[in-house]
Amino acid sequence: MSKYWSEAVNGLTPYVPGEQPKDTGITKLNTNENPYPPSPAAEAAIRDFPLDRLRLYSDPDCAELKQALADHFSLEKKNVFVGNGSDEVLALTFMAFFRQEHPLLLPETTYSFYDVYCNLYDIEYKQIPLCDDFSIDLNDYAEPNAGIIFANPNAPTGRALALSEIEALLQRNTESLVVVDEAYVDFGATSAVELINRYDNVLVIQTFSKSRSLAGMRVGYAVGHEDLIAGLERVKNSFNSYPLDMLAIASSVAAIKDDAYFRETTQKIIDTREWTEKALAELGFVTVPSKTNFLFTSHRYVEAAELMGFLRANKVLVRHFSKPGIDNHLRITIGTPEEMQLLVDTLKRHPDIISMG
Amino acid sequence: MSKYWSEAVNGLTPYVPGEQPKDTGITKLNTNENPYPPSPAAEAAIRDFPLDRLRLYSDPDCAELKQALADHFSLEKKNVFVGNGSDEVLALTFMAFFRQEHPLLLPETTYSFYDVYCNLYDIEYKQIPLCDDFSIDLNDYAEPNAGIIFANPNAPTGRALALSEIEALLQRNTESLVVVDEAYVDFGATSAVELINRYDNVLVIQTFSKSRSLAGMRVGYAVGHEDLIAGLERVKNSFNSYPLDMLAIASSVAAIKDDAYFRETTQKIIDTREWTEKALAELGFVTVPSKTNFLFTSHRYVEAAELMGFLRANKVLVRHFSKPGIDNHLRITIGTPEEMQLLVDTLKRHPDIISMG
Repeated sequence: MSKYWSEAVNGLTPYVPGEQPKDTGITKLNTNENPYPPSPAAEAAIRDFPLDRLRLYSDPDCAELKQALADHFSLEKKNVFVGNGSDEVLALTFMAFFRQEHPLLLPETTYSFYDVYCNLYDIEYKQIPLCDDFSIDLNDYAEPNAGIIFANPNAPTGRALALSEIEALLQRNTESLVVVDEAYVDFGATSAVELINRYDNVLVIQTFSKSRSLAGMRVGYAVGHEDLIAGLERVKNSFNSYPLDMLAIASSVAAIKDDAYFRETTQKIIDTREWTEKALAELGFVTVPSKTNFLFTSHRYVEAAELMGFLRANKVLVRHFSKPGIDNHLRITIGTPEEMQLLVDTLKRHPDIISMG
Repeated sequence: MSKYWSEAVNGLTPYVPGEQPKDTGITKLNTNENPYPPSPAAEAAIRDFPLDRLRLYSDPDCAELKQALADHFSLEKKNVFVGNGSDEVLALTFMAFFRQEHPLLLPETTYSFYDVYCNLYDIEYKQIPLCDDFSIDLNDYAEPNAGIIFANPNAPTGRALALSEIEALLQRNTESLVVVDEAYVDFGATSAVELINRYDNVLVIQTFSKSRSLAGMRVGYAVGHEDLIAGLERVKNSFNSYPLDMLAIASSVAAIKDDAYFRETTQKIIDTREWTEKALAELGFVTVPSKTNFLFTSHRYVEAAELMGFLRANKVLVRHFSKPGIDNHLRITIGTPEEMQLLVDTLKRHPDIISMG
């Protein structure tokens, strides 16, 4: 604390990201990164980049990337906004749309950055409890609101909504914006992007950090009606003209065009997820059905915090949230088959799991 | 405009950056980029980077870069904040410190993003006129304030303040923060970084975009008392955990360590600036004394807007601001000696300049 801080800074509770250990001997299943490297085309775009050009500013409009995304989704460039990771896109979205008279509605259990943004921008919000099976029931989002935001599939639960449920919400909720955060959608859920040409009240946010294996390059985007994109552009251009560097633009353009690699790697992760879910079930875990690159799972007898510590002691990092309601679950990223075998083998050595066997 | 926008979005007047033309046949003297490529060490850091690691998140704390900057300035890591270009660092600074009871004080003519940030964050501000010679008189910044911000050297004028003037301000202005934006300081002005260990009310902001030739990689930073940095971190971690990608971190770490290349290229630009100022004087231009990589200049007889159009028609881009008080000046970036020769040769072909000769 300092007398020079704006008063609101004292009241902030910043987001705490998952640990990024220096130790390369660790099996890292804690931040939902992709176990496979970026597309060879993305790597080539960086290797072949004329680096003397880095003395110049990058394109403030990121036109090439917007056009590549528009082509990918059969939309127009004016329907696409890009930013420095989907976290920045989300932050600017909260600022552009959710400062309204009514509260923002969001799930009680979801990406924990959402309420951090609300505190940052002084946005009133109301958290709606999940159902007992950790699913979101969009019928619960029926009161006057500044907007509605949820992750689909939801995090850290991994559960997905059907497209028909989201479309029904858009038809009911016509006076405010619905934001669908699809960070994990490519691992088996259905995207709401196809609703964009029919509804002006939906904004879909995606990222290159998960299914495109480019977490280290920080690129996210939003697609929606051109008036929504124009609102985001106004805020972005009042904040930072050039959010993406030249290599972030070049690598993400190449990645979005490499559909074959994308399909191959996401399918491998889906297959590994299914294998892992079965292997965990045999060890006494109950896992929420997942359409993501992680599993949200709880052991029948052994506490999650205890298991996280045990795994950590054995150099396997998984994520545990101490929040009531989910504090007996672990969120485990899907790695390679070898990494998941190591996870399972390690868990098998836990004394209380051995004694079950 | 859209009914889904937050009301404040309607009132924003976004910053308009200088043009980034696609046409490579253009001599680009409009956005104060460095004419020399990045340090070979910075290029090697990118070329040698293990790109398979891009699947992982970058270090949210950017510890390696903070430590490299701390070492460079003989400070500690806790005195350093980094961000996605100095524009992002500035934006977060406005949010962290300037939302106070009194108005922010800033020069009437300075970096035109400052009042854009004020509008974005609803910060009251008061613009203090420059002196007739375009200098800043810090004695004019004497009323109760939320903070004081100015660029040193100032933009687009190019004029620098002495360190003693800034120190005297810190001694007078003890109840609020003074931010010194040193984007251009390396081209001949004196940095206020040395005041940081003696004053807790000064924050110095610099960038890799100008003297480090890395505009295309988007890296900026702030140095100051650890309590100031802690305030910035709180806001940053409520906005975007991972603002810098892995290649931005790697290239800027290498650039800050390559002091020989830095001294060589900045000296070349200073020499070219002095040559250009004399050559322009011979053509009838009056130029404000510059400690930057640009010249702020006015012709005795020919209007600035007319000259900008003439240069543009001849494929030379310079910047012109239509703001009253500076609308008869051009801001001309210092390029290579060859580029400045081309500028001078082109100006010599203007009919009204020919007729003077």
